[in-house]
Amino acid sequence: MHHFGELLEKVEKALAVINFKLSPAGLYEPISYTLTPGGKRMRPVMMLMACELFGGDIEKAINPALGIEIFHNFTLLHDDIMDKAPLRRGKETVYQKWDTNTAILSGDTMFAFALDCLIETDTLLIPEILRTFSTTARQVCEGQQYDMEFETAEKVTIADYLMMIRLKTAVLPAASLKIGAIIAGAEPRDAESIYRFGENIGLAFQLKDDLLDVFGDEATFGKHCGGDITSNKKTFLYLKAFELATGNDRLALQHYFGGTDFDEETKYREVKRIYENLKLKDFAEKEMDKYYHQSLVNLDAIAVEEAKKAELKQFAQRLMKRES
Amino acid sequence: MHHFGELLEKVEKALAVINFKLSPAGLYEPISYTLTPGGKRMRPVMMLMACELFGGDIEKAINPALGIEIFHNFTLLHDDIMDKAPLRRGKETVYQKWDTNTAILSGDTMFAFALDCLIETDTLLIPEILRTFSTTARQVCEGQQYDMEFETAEKVTIADYLMMIRLKTAVLPAASLKIGAIIAGAEPRDAESIYRFGENIGLAFQLKDDLLDVFGDEATFGKHCGGDITSNKKTFLYLKAFELATGNDRLALQHYFGGTDFDEETKYREVKRIYENLKLKDFAEKEMDKYYHQSLVNLDAIAVEEAKKAELKQFAQRLMKRES
Repeated sequence: MHHFGELLEKVEKALAVINFKLSPAGLYEPISYTLTPGGKRMRPVMMLMACELFGGDIEKAINPALGIEIFHNFTLLHDDIMDKAPLRRGKETVYQKWDTNTAILSGDTMFAFALDCLIETDTLLIPEILRTFSTTARQVCEGQQYDMEFETAEKVTIADYLMMIRLKTAVLPAASLKIGAIIAGAEPRDAESIYRFGENIGLAFQLKDDLLDVFGDEATFGKHCGGDITSNKKTFLYLKAFELATGNDRLALQHYFGGTDFDEETKYREVKRIYENLKLKDFAEKEMDKYYHQSLVNLDAIAVEEAKKAELKQFAQRLMKRES
Repeated sequence: MHHFGELLEKVEKALAVINFKLSPAGLYEPISYTLTPGGKRMRPVMMLMACELFGGDIEKAINPALGIEIFHNFTLLHDDIMDKAPLRRGKETVYQKWDTNTAILSGDTMFAFALDCLIETDTLLIPEILRTFSTTARQVCEGQQYDMEFETAEKVTIADYLMMIRLKTAVLPAASLKIGAIIAGAEPRDAESIYRFGENIGLAFQLKDDLLDVFGDEATFGKHCGGDITSNKKTFLYLKAFELATGNDRLALQHYFGGTDFDEETKYREVKRIYENLKLKDFAEKEMDKYYHQSLVNLDAIAVEEAKKAELKQFAQRLMKRES
């Protein structure tokens, strides 16, 4: 069993070895740029952790793990076009640095490249890996579509939001874990349990993200807080606020979320004050904890000795306690 | 053995059965719109033909065949954004009818959907199908990138052009045939020969397209001629013209291909006149015939009784003789 840090190093090393100096350079340079160190590499590391949990050989999982990471970065490349995001991990986004056409086509190439990596393992494992992957790939697209539709939708419920983040954010880590389990030859029941573990962790992770955006400490968060508020993003906090707010608080929320022409700091401060009045931090943390605890139930259900689960348990715990 | 028309009907029927009434509708409606009858369905039919050539069961090939068709249409969806094309098969393109974001994301979803179909066959066949497919998918992206780069490139040779159309146009029909062969359990040697057959047919097909755009009869061609000339597209004819033209012809070509602000009819008529002077039709037909005959050599090399090859031979012949 390896620690998280060791597995992360393994992933970074394997990524660094991939040759992206291919022709045409105009297609592959943006891919190489996108994949240079900077990401958390959570999904590939999760795949390796799941593989080890079930006693598998991580050498068989390393290429599929890179495939998942490349696929994930492909979705970011295209999301950044759709969201008109200028920056990603502190660097210019591909569509901004090059152009939209480049971001579309380099992204498409990454999807194909991801496939190349996903099938670079034992032949017998390929069908089951691909079955999990292709379903997941489609769900991630569905999640992004819902996310975009919700921007202009009149009525979005908290259930809608949770459905959306499950698709957009949670199924890919879940599938990463499941593929790791498949590679290790885990029982279908256990592969399903680790999938559920990942799904619940993914949901909790996103709720933590929503919380950090509003209540994070900018110094440790590493980025500017309040981005979701500025952009009127319908997060868990936003939706819960409208569920609970009355009187002047409600009017103020309607005022601030009715436009984008506000002084950002004032809007952030005022909205945050209302969120604090409504004790939204408690509500969101409670919701997050629900998924976190459910994930531990999923982990408990796996027929593997407890000691082997320690690494994944710690990993989940760190995600919940993170301040950035 | 089935005839082309029977296989085409089979493909259309199977496509019509796929349920695209999925959620979110905003994602799946453009996919359904893109896949409604209108395309030639050449690639899926080629897959079924190759499967039958090697005595395979086309029921095992029908889903992968749909996968290839969906993948092909995904590339068109994204190409249309990049090329700013308003129409495709006489209908508004997706990015035009909806918007760019929709075309990006519905396209991505089609890539994933294509995967779903490609792996809906005998489990044992999946690895080899996927190996062929993922390489091909990447090559198609590379071809599109070269195509875009050539638009503004100073120096494009005929060899560059042939390399580009091989990637952008020829490898997908080639892979379709090869996957059909794989599904039928063909020998690797024969699967390689049918791939080469498809590649050469694909190259000849594109050269025929270039010819029809200039020398086609508009009544039978079904679309307006001269589109490549209007848009200064560096086709085989364009490149050969600059290779051969001297004196006033050369000056006229430089004049007309130096901009896009010309009266379209005048430009088309003048450039066509020069092409005729230079006997470019003969040159292009000779080049096309070279690939066509090479494809027949590839077909001859396949260790299958001649009678079984008749359908593919006729198919290739029809592609060469087509007027639309």
